[in-house]
Amino acid sequence: MKIYPSVIGLGYVGLPIFLKLQKNFKTIGFDVDILRIKNLKKGIDTNKEFVKQKLFLTKSSYFTNHYQKLKKSNFFIITVPTPVYKNNLPNLDYLRKSCLLISKVLKKNDLVFFESTVYPGVTEDFCAKILAKNSKLKLNKDFFIGYSPERINPGDKNHSIDKIYKIVSTRNNSAMKIAKKVYGSITKKLILTKNIREAESAKVIENIQRDLNIGLMNEIYKVCHKSNIKFENVIKLASTKWNFLKFNPGLVGGHCLPVDPYYYSTFAKKFGIKTDIILSGRKTNNTMYKFMYNKLIHEIKKFKINSKKTKILLLGLTYKKNVSDFRNSYAIDIYKLLKNKFKNIHVCDPLLKNKKIKNIKILQDFNFKDYDLIINLVNHDIFKSKILKIKKNNQNYIELF
Amino acid sequence: MKIYPSVIGLGYVGLPIFLKLQKNFKTIGFDVDILRIKNLKKGIDTNKEFVKQKLFLTKSSYFTNHYQKLKKSNFFIITVPTPVYKNNLPNLDYLRKSCLLISKVLKKNDLVFFESTVYPGVTEDFCAKILAKNSKLKLNKDFFIGYSPERINPGDKNHSIDKIYKIVSTRNNSAMKIAKKVYGSITKKLILTKNIREAESAKVIENIQRDLNIGLMNEIYKVCHKSNIKFENVIKLASTKWNFLKFNPGLVGGHCLPVDPYYYSTFAKKFGIKTDIILSGRKTNNTMYKFMYNKLIHEIKKFKINSKKTKILLLGLTYKKNVSDFRNSYAIDIYKLLKNKFKNIHVCDPLLKNKKIKNIKILQDFNFKDYDLIINLVNHDIFKSKILKIKKNNQNYIELF
Repeated sequence: MKIYPSVIGLGYVGLPIFLKLQKNFKTIGFDVDILRIKNLKKGIDTNKEFVKQKLFLTKSSYFTNHYQKLKKSNFFIITVPTPVYKNNLPNLDYLRKSCLLISKVLKKNDLVFFESTVYPGVTEDFCAKILAKNSKLKLNKDFFIGYSPERINPGDKNHSIDKIYKIVSTRNNSAMKIAKKVYGSITKKLILTKNIREAESAKVIENIQRDLNIGLMNEIYKVCHKSNIKFENVIKLASTKWNFLKFNPGLVGGHCLPVDPYYYSTFAKKFGIKTDIILSGRKTNNTMYKFMYNKLIHEIKKFKINSKKTKILLLGLTYKKNVSDFRNSYAIDIYKLLKNKFKNIHVCDPLLKNKKIKNIKILQDFNFKDYDLIINLVNHDIFKSKILKIKKNNQNYIELF
Repeated sequence: MKIYPSVIGLGYVGLPIFLKLQKNFKTIGFDVDILRIKNLKKGIDTNKEFVKQKLFLTKSSYFTNHYQKLKKSNFFIITVPTPVYKNNLPNLDYLRKSCLLISKVLKKNDLVFFESTVYPGVTEDFCAKILAKNSKLKLNKDFFIGYSPERINPGDKNHSIDKIYKIVSTRNNSAMKIAKKVYGSITKKLILTKNIREAESAKVIENIQRDLNIGLMNEIYKVCHKSNIKFENVIKLASTKWNFLKFNPGLVGGHCLPVDPYYYSTFAKKFGIKTDIILSGRKTNNTMYKFMYNKLIHEIKKFKINSKKTKILLLGLTYKKNVSDFRNSYAIDIYKLLKNKFKNIHVCDPLLKNKKIKNIKILQDFNFKDYDLIINLVNHDIFKSKILKIKKNNQNYIELF
């Protein structure tokens, strides 16, 4: 069988996979977002993870937003978002729509692999059922499914997809053979398992652990701050213990960490388990921006500047440094709170070039002398040289953490 | 000045410090427990951390329970327990009593160092004040205080006190010089800081981080167990991510982890901070034994043995493997629950030789053929060969985790 892969969803996860695959296979890169496809065809990744020359296509691979083109594919990789609703319940809508779309083009012997972070059982009990029902094909006879959790860390060049271990799970032996060829072309470090639920669990708990540990640091940061104890020094001392784990406090936003704890908690609830620890981490991280806002206001007051005329510039609005992703970015929440208090407030984030955030005008550059106060919310490397000048010039300047 | 150290409290923390110090200084080992002193004089450490030849005294050092002997000492190291009351509030009674005792013998230029885990401020705001008030001496003029948190890990031979970093904090320069000589004779890896509160914070958060991370694994263990997903496999898969942290689920007992989160939370509360994360970890770990008990009952049922006549043997009763400490041991709670259900229940723990637990008869040895079922609660290495035989013999056997 000739493998003809396609990647459904060309975001932070799908695009790097597509780019690796198309070096070895004729690959279709599919996204429902016409603008995304147009940009990618022009060699523009608005997520700023790939420069133009990295987007050159080989092996007659191509980008498309026409699902009919997917008919030729026999190995579908789904990399769509799995967010939560406002009530924090899992929103599987993108997955559902992808499955409905694929069921229109699904043929005998096709394979469908999912990469989106979910709770255990979603691949087999939710996705596979939609595929089977709508394609009229039989799972594990006509078509096969698998799960290979994405471990993309946006902005992290040291752990790119070709350097890290990738879990590949499917119950079917022949499907595993094919998956090995496909995923083996992305990284040599494959971890194979037949148990999809175990793979789903592994992925979601990785993120939960990280969310919780940052949450703990946030909690300790608050205590230190209120009790006038220097957090940085405490951590430096604690880090001299052989098994202390250094995590930094922060505004934990983005698509993964603020979401995944709710996925797992929803799953746990079905079995009568209350995930107090997991949810406490999220609760603290969800509200940390308010604490930091109050700290900011306190620091701004020290400058004794008039709130009506004061010109303030905020640096950075994405969910973390050096990425262009602003989903669940708490810097935006802090911006909104500040905007209510200070009328003359500008925001600069060059990483958000070509991106739009409702009701916010985002500057690409700035002259620091135009402002009475500069507040660094997200410390992108791109700001480095300007911040040096700001400090040298003794401008009023605050760093969030 | 000739340094004449004394160690107040010869438990898991004090004894190893005393034994190191007495190699370089004439040192007094003091404990209020007469039996402990008698045993140590005979070369017996009932905590089983030191064998007889390790307890040989040099430099005319000695053990005593007479506080008057402490008059000669000029460098006091306090290593007494800091437990919590039943309502989980910090019980500083041992510290208070130690300070009262030392204030009777305190002279000009003496130094008092504390090693017990506390919340920030206890050394300066609680201990120092008791010392000053009762000795009529002035802090930082007549006498000096410091804090050097213990990092003893009972049963862990790889991280003995001479191999690990030790924080030493005192605000006074000349006190620091003397402390460097004393603690420098224990380990070459000293971390010096003037800020006692930072040192106090560092110590307590190290334990909190560990407690929480084990708590998270307990929570995930519960979810996996209830949803029929193999926890061990999930962790194995997750561990293939570069930044996943492997912690094992367990019954988190002992003197430190079940206590320290409450110390810090009490401190945080004074500043209006609710430590949801820290307390959630403790809550889960405090009740984990109930979950494990129910799991045990479920497994026992599979053996179809009659509860009235069944002879059950429990292995291990201490708070973790290879230690003799049974403070806050949840194995004891499980024993009590099982005892209510099964009348013929024995318990064996050779590490508890010479120790007494109220209302529990502890066997030092056993013949596995005398029992219908053997349940391994605490997997001491000392049980290894017998467990092999039990398995070989196809005896009914359950391991807790």
